[in-house]
Amino acid sequence: MSKVFIGGKEYFPGIGKINYEGKESDNPLAFKFYDENWIVAGKSMKEHLRFAVAYWHTLTEDGSDPFGDATQDRPWNQAKDPLKEAEEKADAAFEFFTKLGAPYYCFHDVDAAPDADDVKEYEKNVETVTSMLLERQKATGMKLLWNTANMFSHPRYMNGAATNPDFRVLSRAAVQVKAMLDANVKLGGENYVFWGGREGYTQLFNTDMKREQEHLARFLSLARDYGRKIGFKGPFLIEPKPMEPSKHQYDSDAAAVIAFLKTYDLAGDFMINIEANHATLAGKAFPHDLAVAANAGLLGSIDANRGDPQNGWDTDQFPTDVYDATHAMLVVLQNGGLGSGGLNFDAKVRRNSTDLEDLFHAHIGGMDTFAIALEAADRIIARGLVKKFRDSRYESYNSGRGAEFEQGKLSFEDLRDYAAGIKEIPKISGKQEQIENAINQILFG
Amino acid sequence: MSKVFIGGKEYFPGIGKINYEGKESDNPLAFKFYDENWIVAGKSMKEHLRFAVAYWHTLTEDGSDPFGDATQDRPWNQAKDPLKEAEEKADAAFEFFTKLGAPYYCFHDVDAAPDADDVKEYEKNVETVTSMLLERQKATGMKLLWNTANMFSHPRYMNGAATNPDFRVLSRAAVQVKAMLDANVKLGGENYVFWGGREGYTQLFNTDMKREQEHLARFLSLARDYGRKIGFKGPFLIEPKPMEPSKHQYDSDAAAVIAFLKTYDLAGDFMINIEANHATLAGKAFPHDLAVAANAGLLGSIDANRGDPQNGWDTDQFPTDVYDATHAMLVVLQNGGLGSGGLNFDAKVRRNSTDLEDLFHAHIGGMDTFAIALEAADRIIARGLVKKFRDSRYESYNSGRGAEFEQGKLSFEDLRDYAAGIKEIPKISGKQEQIENAINQILFG
Amino acid sequence: MSKVFIGGKEYFPGIGKINYEGKESDNPLAFKFYDENWIVAGKSMKEHLRFAVAYWHTLTEDGSDPFGDATQDRPWNQAKDPLKEAEEKADAAFEFFTKLGAPYYCFHDVDAAPDADDVKEYEKNVETVTSMLLERQKATGMKLLWNTANMFSHPRYMNGAATNPDFRVLSRAAVQVKAMLDANVKLGGENYVFWGGREGYTQLFNTDMKREQEHLARFLSLARDYGRKIGFKGPFLIEPKPMEPSKHQYDSDAAAVIAFLKTYDLAGDFMINIEANHATLAGKAFPHDLAVAANAGLLGSIDANRGDPQNGWDTDQFPTDVYDATHAMLVVLQNGGLGSGGLNFDAKVRRNSTDLEDLFHAHIGGMDTFAIALEAADRIIARGLVKKFRDSRYESYNSGRGAEFEQGKLSFEDLRDYAAGIKEIPKISGKQEQIENAINQILFG
Amino acid sequence: MSKVFIGGKEYFPGIGKINYEGKESDNPLAFKFYDENWIVAGKSMKEHLRFAVAYWHTLTEDGSDPFGDATQDRPWNQAKDPLKEAEEKADAAFEFFTKLGAPYYCFHDVDAAPDADDVKEYEKNVETVTSMLLERQKATGMKLLWNTANMFSHPRYMNGAATNPDFRVLSRAAVQVKAMLDANVKLGGENYVFWGGREGYTQLFNTDMKREQEHLARFLSLARDYGRKIGFKGPFLIEPKPMEPSKHQYDSDAAAVIAFLKTYDLAGDFMINIEANHATLAGKAFPHDLAVAANAGLLGSIDANRGDPQNGWDTDQFPTDVYDATHAMLVVLQNGGLGSGGLNFDAKVRRNSTDLEDLFHAHIGGMDTFAIALEAADRIIARGLVKKFRDSRYESYNSGRGAEFEQGKLSFEDLRDYAAGIKEIPKISGKQEQIENAINQILFG
Repeated sequence: MSKVFIGGKEYFPGIGKINYEGKESDNPLAFKFYDENWIVAGKSMKEHLRFAVAYWHTLTEDGSDPFGDATQDRPWNQAKDPLKEAEEKADAAFEFFTKLGAPYYCFHDVDAAPDADDVKEYEKNVETVTSMLLERQKATGMKLLWNTANMFSHPRYMNGAATNPDFRVLSRAAVQVKAMLDANVKLGGENYVFWGGREGYTQLFNTDMKREQEHLARFLSLARDYGRKIGFKGPFLIEPKPMEPSKHQYDSDAAAVIAFLKTYDLAGDFMINIEANHATLAGKAFPHDLAVAANAGLLGSIDANRGDPQNGWDTDQFPTDVYDATHAMLVVLQNGGLGSGGLNFDAKVRRNSTDLEDLFHAHIGGMDTFAIALEAADRIIARGLVKKFRDSRYESYNSGRGAEFEQGKLSFEDLRDYAAGIKEIPKISGKQEQIENAINQILFG
Repeated sequence: MSKVFIGGKEYFPGIGKINYEGKESDNPLAFKFYDENWIVAGKSMKEHLRFAVAYWHTLTEDGSDPFGDATQDRPWNQAKDPLKEAEEKADAAFEFFTKLGAPYYCFHDVDAAPDADDVKEYEKNVETVTSMLLERQKATGMKLLWNTANMFSHPRYMNGAATNPDFRVLSRAAVQVKAMLDANVKLGGENYVFWGGREGYTQLFNTDMKREQEHLARFLSLARDYGRKIGFKGPFLIEPKPMEPSKHQYDSDAAAVIAFLKTYDLAGDFMINIEANHATLAGKAFPHDLAVAANAGLLGSIDANRGDPQNGWDTDQFPTDVYDATHAMLVVLQNGGLGSGGLNFDAKVRRNSTDLEDLFHAHIGGMDTFAIALEAADRIIARGLVKKFRDSRYESYNSGRGAEFEQGKLSFEDLRDYAAGIKEIPKISGKQEQIENAINQILFG
Repeated sequence: MSKVFIGGKEYFPGIGKINYEGKESDNPLAFKFYDENWIVAGKSMKEHLRFAVAYWHTLTEDGSDPFGDATQDRPWNQAKDPLKEAEEKADAAFEFFTKLGAPYYCFHDVDAAPDADDVKEYEKNVETVTSMLLERQKATGMKLLWNTANMFSHPRYMNGAATNPDFRVLSRAAVQVKAMLDANVKLGGENYVFWGGREGYTQLFNTDMKREQEHLARFLSLARDYGRKIGFKGPFLIEPKPMEPSKHQYDSDAAAVIAFLKTYDLAGDFMINIEANHATLAGKAFPHDLAVAANAGLLGSIDANRGDPQNGWDTDQFPTDVYDATHAMLVVLQNGGLGSGGLNFDAKVRRNSTDLEDLFHAHIGGMDTFAIALEAADRIIARGLVKKFRDSRYESYNSGRGAEFEQGKLSFEDLRDYAAGIKEIPKISGKQEQIENAINQILFG
Repeated sequence: MSKVFIGGKEYFPGIGKINYEGKESDNPLAFKFYDENWIVAGKSMKEHLRFAVAYWHTLTEDGSDPFGDATQDRPWNQAKDPLKEAEEKADAAFEFFTKLGAPYYCFHDVDAAPDADDVKEYEKNVETVTSMLLERQKATGMKLLWNTANMFSHPRYMNGAATNPDFRVLSRAAVQVKAMLDANVKLGGENYVFWGGREGYTQLFNTDMKREQEHLARFLSLARDYGRKIGFKGPFLIEPKPMEPSKHQYDSDAAAVIAFLKTYDLAGDFMINIEANHATLAGKAFPHDLAVAANAGLLGSIDANRGDPQNGWDTDQFPTDVYDATHAMLVVLQNGGLGSGGLNFDAKVRRNSTDLEDLFHAHIGGMDTFAIALEAADRIIARGLVKKFRDSRYESYNSGRGAEFEQGKLSFEDLRDYAAGIKEIPKISGKQEQIENAINQILFG
């Protein structure tokens, strides 16, 4: 994928392939830390990090917010004819992907293809545009990390998609998911994602939460059956978020998704896509929710971004906090990697970052951040910090009565009797401050 | 339970039995709304609401906070001898319970009995004090809603109780839970509660979350086995809280508890005790978390209190917001009541509410609030608002293709084909504003 | 203002004048509590509450949110020609105002008039449309509570308006404010408002906060000079908000505005417009920020709405919480009323409230809520609760040494000496629980 | 101050003077980054950073929290006699200070001296203990950054100190402040601090906010007069915090303090002490509140700590986030340094950090963090990033019409006319992503 793709027109003139130039480079359009072929813990950075560009934020977003109009006029969004516009956008997309050097991309149906109320017209648009994408994948070697159906923007979904009180809306949502599963197989997608922005409620007085969740579960199981039938072999991913646009979204965090998957027996095929900013909106640290998913064997993929700790909504900023990224990569390395998942930049440039090159700065920053983080996480493990500060704390369970407890050989009375025989239980420091110093030494030493 | 209990000394002189005097009464030490024998929806208020007084907040609390010392010097906490103090406290407790007219109470081991590091001394203290309680239960007709072991205050639990990295601490926790299960059977308790304030962590770098949760699950299953063996037949309740004192507590909200119970196959015997202020700390409306538990068939009991929407910690205020209480009671009525659970006032008077009578004002206010709420919730149902504003929205699933979907008769392709045949899907208003007006009319009309 | 206005077309057919029908009415399109001529504390409800309808939310809003497209297609927003559309919207507006029976309205320039990049075209549009408004004011007796210039939606303001680093943008903002001041005088507006949604920043690294605030202060003082010159006599109002769309907005809460006004010597002409949802986003209770403004003699007007305590953004819901409204009205009554200010419904129907009648439900609910609240606040005062629970607490400052302290007659050494002579300082309960019970008795008794 | 102080007993045996050993050192009890004599921007690190140790957290704190008892049994807190205990604590303190190598310390009256209800006994205790401190200052060269009176822990302050409705309490507070001002002069303190944890309220219904703030203002002005009279020449500092223990504290953030100081004409003598965790509790970024204070010319000193972005209370953790510290140091450098202020570690080790050496790890980490930050902030300026990314954005105000605007030469009509002549205003990117990359390159490059 080393060749740059230029379609009918060059959309980012003056910007060539982004190269690794090292920490001292004063070229802002170069990687300082991300060297895709550099080997860390036996794999290249590229293989570890599996970066993906998000079609919606990078190609479709226009800078509008609830208080303001679009600020970002993109040259690929000018064509009058929707399919022509879709093609130019696809050209721009693959030019961007290949200049940046990310191996993957992700998209919603309506990011790439013109929407239509008429089912057949919609399906035809998807068919046409996915062929454009396929062609460009072949030309470039780009791969599809995941795709998804946007079931939150259209007014018909204002009361929910698969949880809509109106069965017609639920069935209409199936149109989009079916089309996107077809597209996934066509494009060789490695995962398929569900984010339920409208699968929640604004008021409980008019909401039958249980019936809605049962509908959602059945909808997902039917989608799964269809996907398997047409040959999709990857995981289906649920992406949690606690609120916004809903007051309460059903899939509020990793634990809520696990409860749901277990209640409706979907955990075999479904895994979890953790987004940093969604975890923090749920009151959970990003690494916490990653670990919850990983501990359940359900960590599927990551939406890499960040929120603002002083703002209570999804700011979807590019991830540039090396602390968070390092902690995330530590969880990922301990999980044995991301499997078929990757690091998708579900992040957008600020509304006032109106230069085309800002899109490159943003992605370069995110990729450099995770490159620093990957190396730091590897050093944390390699220098024995996990062993020293974490694993050794649990030694009492590795042998003797503690081990018997873990093996299920003790009764509650046994525990009581064991405790009765202990003279004094010493306090054992958790050493949090020393650990934090050690992390800073690894990062800045 | 109409007789007032006075022990060795009257601790609330000048305050007699709190009676229902009606809305117009200008006696602050009377119920304005709670008439225990008043029948609502076929049961008395007393039977619906099953109020319990919390030993810790009402008898043990002293007004200290992280920035200040005790302000509330109680006359029953003056004795030098710990067992004497325990007895005087028990006297004061039952005097308070019976003057107030709440049928239930709840306690932690160390609220009622002197703690001791030595296991046998601890057990003896518990034995002695629970006999005092039993005697007073018999004398008054008071009943035990639930009890629990305090596994968070003692320094030994600073790194967790059942999730402590040190097996000695876990086994010491079993001492307390065993003693409290014994006490529960002795006192005829109707539920048994676990709140895991230290079952969480402050830093992930030194925490093996998965191993800790496995230990917790095994601990709970052993406690369950022991409880069943000695004849406890009620539900074990897990009380969720997202944080404080831990940074992240494992049982963060109802959904997290459900995930945990299902992962470790504990959902048969364990249910959930929802606390209002804990739900809001988790970013969830109180009625939301009640409904999540109820939908899973796991709503066990309620800790009735409230937090401050502008403060980020557990303020444990008495519940006086009729809106919240009404919504809660609506969920309870729709759940068919609280079963063996009740409304426990896990709430404390403010630090500067230093008069003894403030304890009465606080409980009177909480009980009156839920009395108003119970009647309002009943009216909401009786006047058909749930039917009109909620149930009718789902009519499309009651027959035809919608019903077939619910019955599992449709495939994903069927859904798509059904949608393809629909001309236009109308927008259907959720009527939120009209509903809110209807609620206000019920409350203030 | 008892006559209903119908313009070229009736936009709300089937809905007539909303009348007061009393608490028992089962007509959802009637007031249950707001009886405009009912006398409370010597003035009619209408005179106390001075309700205003917000042009933007009620006439212009379309239900779009950051995750979804417009859901609310209004019949008055269909005309192709912008000035024709403006006229139809004005017709719909005055029909709505007069059917509802609110005496005031508020608007931003671009809510009512078509925007234009060209300065003269913009000014001409404003001139044309304000003449339409004036004509309708005359026909109906409706009055303008306040107007304002929208300096946040247009892309040119993405880096701020009066705080923009580019002087051209600041001067362009003056175009709009000048036009709106002219319009205010033309329409007899009683106040003029500034809300600085973009007067803040997303990142401090590229922001010279001090220079920006100096620009803002100068801009405001020039606007003030111009307003006075053309005959505007009312207060200029600053509306605080802490964040959104900015990360940090300069005018974050009432206190921040006071600091700003005092720093730049603007407090004579400028007062504060408190919005409930903005106060809570700032971590302040709504009544708190009202009281802060009132205590400084700067409470100008109120944007009556509410946020969601579990959501971290401006939900702008209609105010239906009687507790909040009662507390607000208590502050207002203690302030001697709202002066030239009023209660403007800066609130929007939910995105899925798509029926035209929902606009009426929403406003009826808000008006009924404040009617209940006004009466309750009056009762709180009339029954002596403020005196009993608040004023009497400060008695020690009414005479003796306490009074001398207030009069400035004591030195620090005097205070020390006085304290040295006191034997014991008793603890005096704040009686919070008793007060809360008293409030509930007033509301529900 | 290079000599270590050992009093009657060595309290930290096995730990010697903490030395700078450089980034590669594997000695956890050494500085990796803080080299006190290293010159940055013309001054030594020691002169820039002016570190202070907080007596309360480091010598007095015991690990208790609202849910648990003390975990940290310190060898210097064992003596039965309070004055003996005070002396041993002072020995431990100066041993700690000098081993660590921080040049300053800070204390509350009751951290160091035994409290007493009797005024004279209290004053005598203070007198005795401050003599102990003075003696040790002389022996070591340690200096007092600031002291303060604890007017929040004692029950008498449960309703406020200077804002207490009871004049007796206010006067009793003056006893403590007077004693601490005397102590300050005696010990050569460089600043004097007020933090008003109880100067706020839990409920507005029983609070006359205006009268309370007037009392506070008078109290402060009397304290100022007294301080000046006895020869105190440094700034009085107000430390803002928005809540906790109060629901709303009056001095909620830097802006609220500025409003207060300007309202009551105290800004000459009073400045602001910004605490990181207090700023974030107020919804403000730490650097934001620093800049607000600095812009007003009122940045007095800093309480260096950090909160937890997922927890809503004051966690008072040691500052180890280099991003925050770098941004803070950038504001400090741009402010021309901290003047007579410093960086006081208002931070405590975690409750489960029970080893004595954890106190050293904590402070070493905090000092190393700010050493990294100081160098990084210096590089940000030296490499021209502030100029490039911030100052150059405002160029339009440096000449021409923009400069005239700043000079007050333009009217509002002039602005309008200038704007009318502009053809098109280009959008200028804020370059946020590029800036963030540049910061990461400086930190990790």
